[in-house]
Amino acid sequence: MADIIIKNGYILTMNPAQDDIKQGVVVIKDGIITRVAESTDETADTIIDAKGGVVMPGLVNTHTHAGMTLFRGYADDLALSDWLENHIWPAEAQLTGNDLYIGTKLACLEMIRSGTTAFVDMYIHMDSVARAVEESGMRAALSYGMIDLGDHERGMSELKEGRRFVREWNGRADGRITTMYGPHAPHTCSRDLLGLVKEYAIDDNVKIHIHILETEAELNEMKKMFGMCSVNMLDELGFLDNDVIAAHCIWLSDGDMDILNKCGVNVSHNPVSNMKLASGISPVPKMLARGVNVSLGTDGCASNNNLDMFGEMKTAALLHKVDTSDPTTLPARQVLEMATVNGARAMGTNSGMLKLGCMADVIIVDMDRPHLTPVYNVASHLVYSASGGDVRTTIVDGKVLMDDYRVLVMDEQKVMDEARSATEKILPTVGLTRTT
Amino acid sequence: MADIIIKNGYILTMNPAQDDIKQGVVVIKDGIITRVAESTDETADTIIDAKGGVVMPGLVNTHTHAGMTLFRGYADDLALSDWLENHIWPAEAQLTGNDLYIGTKLACLEMIRSGTTAFVDMYIHMDSVARAVEESGMRAALSYGMIDLGDHERGMSELKEGRRFVREWNGRADGRITTMYGPHAPHTCSRDLLGLVKEYAIDDNVKIHIHILETEAELNEMKKMFGMCSVNMLDELGFLDNDVIAAHCIWLSDGDMDILNKCGVNVSHNPVSNMKLASGISPVPKMLARGVNVSLGTDGCASNNNLDMFGEMKTAALLHKVDTSDPTTLPARQVLEMATVNGARAMGTNSGMLKLGCMADVIIVDMDRPHLTPVYNVASHLVYSASGGDVRTTIVDGKVLMDDYRVLVMDEQKVMDEARSATEKILPTVGLTRTT
Repeated sequence: MADIIIKNGYILTMNPAQDDIKQGVVVIKDGIITRVAESTDETADTIIDAKGGVVMPGLVNTHTHAGMTLFRGYADDLALSDWLENHIWPAEAQLTGNDLYIGTKLACLEMIRSGTTAFVDMYIHMDSVARAVEESGMRAALSYGMIDLGDHERGMSELKEGRRFVREWNGRADGRITTMYGPHAPHTCSRDLLGLVKEYAIDDNVKIHIHILETEAELNEMKKMFGMCSVNMLDELGFLDNDVIAAHCIWLSDGDMDILNKCGVNVSHNPVSNMKLASGISPVPKMLARGVNVSLGTDGCASNNNLDMFGEMKTAALLHKVDTSDPTTLPARQVLEMATVNGARAMGTNSGMLKLGCMADVIIVDMDRPHLTPVYNVASHLVYSASGGDVRTTIVDGKVLMDDYRVLVMDEQKVMDEARSATEKILPTVGLTRTT
Repeated sequence: MADIIIKNGYILTMNPAQDDIKQGVVVIKDGIITRVAESTDETADTIIDAKGGVVMPGLVNTHTHAGMTLFRGYADDLALSDWLENHIWPAEAQLTGNDLYIGTKLACLEMIRSGTTAFVDMYIHMDSVARAVEESGMRAALSYGMIDLGDHERGMSELKEGRRFVREWNGRADGRITTMYGPHAPHTCSRDLLGLVKEYAIDDNVKIHIHILETEAELNEMKKMFGMCSVNMLDELGFLDNDVIAAHCIWLSDGDMDILNKCGVNVSHNPVSNMKLASGISPVPKMLARGVNVSLGTDGCASNNNLDMFGEMKTAALLHKVDTSDPTTLPARQVLEMATVNGARAMGTNSGMLKLGCMADVIIVDMDRPHLTPVYNVASHLVYSASGGDVRTTIVDGKVLMDDYRVLVMDEQKVMDEARSATEKILPTVGLTRTT
């Protein structure tokens, strides 16, 4: 007997074959998809009627700092350096492990509600983050963000903490939690640290999560320091391969893109954050044309200001159409692939598609809504018309986390109240007053 | 005794004074706001508890083709000419008055749900459109879209129909419906027609709704035909003044912007449509700096693909930050003004703010949601974190159209079902098959 049978839904498999099923079933047992077909004779403990809905792989958010939900909207419309140095960093310095636990709980709640089933995180107080992820039922690849700013001693202690976390949490929560090394960026980490990180990552058999060329300032700094840009420096260091997830990748030359492609680097595109901070526009169509695996990330809530991957999909599709002056750029299906298949590939998980043997990370999007009526093309509606609020059911690893809009894995009101209390405590310490 | 008292909400007045009230009341009588304060001793038939919500002016959508909901997502990711000539126009040719009634009903339902209380429309079968608006309880400025493509006879019959509609419907539905002349664009209407439209509009004391420089093709065509661009031609014609709402306005020179400003033309910015069709980026910050009244519009559902003004606000803020490489461009408050105050000014209605004497077009946004927690800055959340699905209550002209997410003015399921049936009928006539 199966655990879960989802029936009567439009099955958007996201297989390259585009073998959608207009009305079909998805069968789940022991956290694995055991059948995707028009019908089944099996029975299950749980039968979910997806009538009027689209059954699809859960969305994968490949770059965020989940706990930043606590800073949602507290410092907007500012210059990047002012935003980071005078607002975000001082505020982060005040965060305790418990704050991060609460902020990550809130992030997981928001992601479960908006159809994200897995995410890639880089932040601080990672034991607390991991605990929140474990309790939430979500899938995540977690890393401790390391910065040494050229200070060797600091680098070594950062690396020590990074390794401690990597080894302590990798594979926990029935494998839902994996760990990565998280060197912040090429201009905030010394070349020595980056070299050691690569050695450690290979030694521990884990991936690396890093920001690359988010700003023009990084590009100029690297050229000044090394006489070459971040991508060339990392390539020379032997740092780049398909075990690296590189966030942003905005200020790239054609040569940089060739290197990223040659090395199989996974790029996480964060269009909303890049637009909001005016960081620039990543040359995503050029990377996709080369065959680079480009996925989508929301970045943290301080620069977005939510974790809604549907909004990220729409923004990605719109931004590159107008940027290339070509409305055929990034069609809906391709954007959906970035948010599912490509994201799973970046994380190295057997998910992102609905097919036999894949991990059962599945969502149901409710299409029986005025703004999703009528339906000509399911992919188009998911990218251009839907939002996270249209997600009705979220399943991760074969466990139902949200059923028909009811979150089952946490006390929603309690999580929100605790986040508000944590914020009240942080506000004065960073000299903030509400600007409402 | 008052009709409605809204209490316990954060009152975002949108007055230039930014005199928000952290916890206050809004009193409504006979469709007018009679009090905005911290408290009141009055009683009312209807008491609405806005606890945990933001009470604000309803959003004003200053450019759409409401009935195009029927074409939501049927022709995406195509080149503009292919999209328009091979898909939209043939499909529109098949629409009956009843189709437009159904499509507009669906649009009103979607707008009510997403917090839009008034819209500016240009389309066909306008009697049916007006009937749907009248029944929906919404406020709208409606115009029959006129095109003559240089054919004098066609122009005269278009003008005749335009005037018939203007005179028949202006002021109907207790004044909720006003009418305008709707010459499509400077390159699809002859100069003679545009000149007559201006005379008629002055004669009938109504405004004009027109597309201006949405595409570079229009700019080139105008230069070829008239040796000058659309703005110069219309200025020479004496067409431009503050009774004109000009949609898109993308391909403008600095001189064009000076003319629009000098004449007091109201510009409707449609960022999502402009990005999706790769039409270009309107120089909105430059226009605002000059003092041009720039508001926001979603355009039709075939190029968006929804009518969510929250999405339009976020996209506007993001697009111009990255386009100007300045994250301080279009801060949240200014974008909210575009979607409320500026929109009402374009329509010439005494609304767009919560203050004594204004028409009671009011919405309540539910902030007790994970993706809107915590709150530091209400304006920031409304622009960067919220979506139309967070609107809890919608009031137009002092009448509650949606109460705590329940739409009171129409049978939601019936409206959606009728839209689906209408679509089924249209599909084969335009040689369409669902591309799901």
